[in-house]
Amino acid sequence: MKARKFWLFVALIAATFAIGAQAADPLPSWKDGQTKQSILAFVEKVTEAGSPDFVSPAERIATFDNDGTLWAEQPMYFQLFFALDRVKALAPQHPEWKDKEPFASLLKGDLKAALAGGEKAILEIVMATHAGMTTAEFEQIVMEWVATARHPKTKRLYTKMVYQPMLELLAFLRANDFKTFIVSGGGIEFMRPWTEAVYGIPPEQVVGSSIETKFEVRGDGPVLVRLPKMNFIDDKEGKPIGINSHIGRRPIAAFGNSDGDLQMLQWTAAGPGKRLCLIVHHTDGEREWAYDRESHIGRLDKAIDEAKAKDWTVVDMKRDWKVIFPSSKK
Amino acid sequence: MKARKFWLFVALIAATFAIGAQAADPLPSWKDGQTKQSILAFVEKVTEAGSPDFVSPAERIATFDNDGTLWAEQPMYFQLFFALDRVKALAPQHPEWKDKEPFASLLKGDLKAALAGGEKAILEIVMATHAGMTTAEFEQIVMEWVATARHPKTKRLYTKMVYQPMLELLAFLRANDFKTFIVSGGGIEFMRPWTEAVYGIPPEQVVGSSIETKFEVRGDGPVLVRLPKMNFIDDKEGKPIGINSHIGRRPIAAFGNSDGDLQMLQWTAAGPGKRLCLIVHHTDGEREWAYDRESHIGRLDKAIDEAKAKDWTVVDMKRDWKVIFPSSKK
Repeated sequence: MKARKFWLFVALIAATFAIGAQAADPLPSWKDGQTKQSILAFVEKVTEAGSPDFVSPAERIATFDNDGTLWAEQPMYFQLFFALDRVKALAPQHPEWKDKEPFASLLKGDLKAALAGGEKAILEIVMATHAGMTTAEFEQIVMEWVATARHPKTKRLYTKMVYQPMLELLAFLRANDFKTFIVSGGGIEFMRPWTEAVYGIPPEQVVGSSIETKFEVRGDGPVLVRLPKMNFIDDKEGKPIGINSHIGRRPIAAFGNSDGDLQMLQWTAAGPGKRLCLIVHHTDGEREWAYDRESHIGRLDKAIDEAKAKDWTVVDMKRDWKVIFPSSKK
Repeated sequence: MKARKFWLFVALIAATFAIGAQAADPLPSWKDGQTKQSILAFVEKVTEAGSPDFVSPAERIATFDNDGTLWAEQPMYFQLFFALDRVKALAPQHPEWKDKEPFASLLKGDLKAALAGGEKAILEIVMATHAGMTTAEFEQIVMEWVATARHPKTKRLYTKMVYQPMLELLAFLRANDFKTFIVSGGGIEFMRPWTEAVYGIPPEQVVGSSIETKFEVRGDGPVLVRLPKMNFIDDKEGKPIGINSHIGRRPIAAFGNSDGDLQMLQWTAAGPGKRLCLIVHHTDGEREWAYDRESHIGRLDKAIDEAKAKDWTVVDMKRDWKVIFPSSKK
């Protein structure tokens, strides 16, 4: 009888925990409604043993865009703020920049004139600030910037401009044995130094754009030197290519916010079985920014039409999210 | 007292399992000796809590070459056997090959004449057999070949030409929270369809050479088409570049067998803290093949000199391995 009582006690405790676990809301910053429900229903269907939609843990691949999906992207991509800060920091070593566009305008504080040169100007700024050092040196530079630079409008650290509801979603998926990946147009080595601490996503699960590197054996050992030459652009058609190259499996869930994510969503949707394709629609001009079809950054036009046609999940930030950013700003 | 007896009983059971676990040899196909000892000592040092050499699980990255390190590579790379089989299978669709080298010689069974064209000839054979289909179609072709093709000398399936001691080493490292990666000169999409079943290494942990792919939306949905153009060669200097691109962390352990692995070993060795750099030396002409400095395939010359100079671990296959291949040939 003692043993029986013991096992009854164990069963009671286990049941209490089981009920407790079920009752706790895994997505507390998401308002109840259709959007949240579609996420919960998808995860339940693909993880429930015996469900016709069951997916083995190894195949539970979820890919997330970064800019505009996991963290904000206004008034311009944060990596561009990084590049501009680097131009200022490096200016003393480049006296020639005083007379050379786009650097001259940049250093005078005239961002608009600097970026008037379009993609070519941006590429010049990126190469001047992202190449010419070793990978270890670049990592250090990024870490220092991320620890100190602040967003011009909110004055938050950029890593506190991440979306609290998406942090919860990442954790919820991982708690259900999903492997979460970033698949971003941003620089792969710009993201990797901080994604593990901020999103719980380790470097080997970050896919992004890259420049070429060169292996060199120097006096104090081998290094990888970052070269001023594009290697891969992980945007639009590049996203399924990057997914195939780095992951080698098709995601069963994908999360984006712009036309740059459309091909990743199409690629995800085209696999067999249950899929979750989700678009974050920036509708909250008060708490964040409101933009879509006409925006230069994060334009959402074709992808929102396709989302409607194909019944993908669309997050209305204003309606669906109780909070946008984490409460701590530091 | 009942409760106390219960806990004593639990403690006894736990202790029995603990002793049992310690006593079981994790590397039963490795002969006792310096090589095995250096592996065991390394794993103990980096995993023991409180050890000055302790490495957190997230940083326990181990990279393995494939050809000649995890499976055999003689009398030629197995992927080349695959390519030759594909030339034969595709010949009816390519009547022009009858008069066109290197295909003409190949189809006549004259391998030597076919490969006389060197790298250019091999590249032509690879492109004719590895490109022009979707990634899904190529995966299917590889799976069928791997399930049926047999090695000309041993008559084993190629996936049974893997090294039993290395399978044990992979499992031992994973049991100690290492993440095991392949970093091979072989084709990334040639390996991924079978590495999970054979090595326990999932597609997202396979790094290899690649050709370019193109995203296309067809009538029945989006596909990735394999193009006849090299994208990345994951050999020699390419290995640390591939590691940085795919993993984004420096390995603490690396395993190779040829000069093609030297830069990966150098890159691994150059990190701070305890490292394990290991070279498989093919010394067993009876049970496998014996080759090193003069071999065209898997040449081991500079790397063995550097291994000696830097006190890396060198496996003498004849001396260190009780068995070479798994007992099952099917």
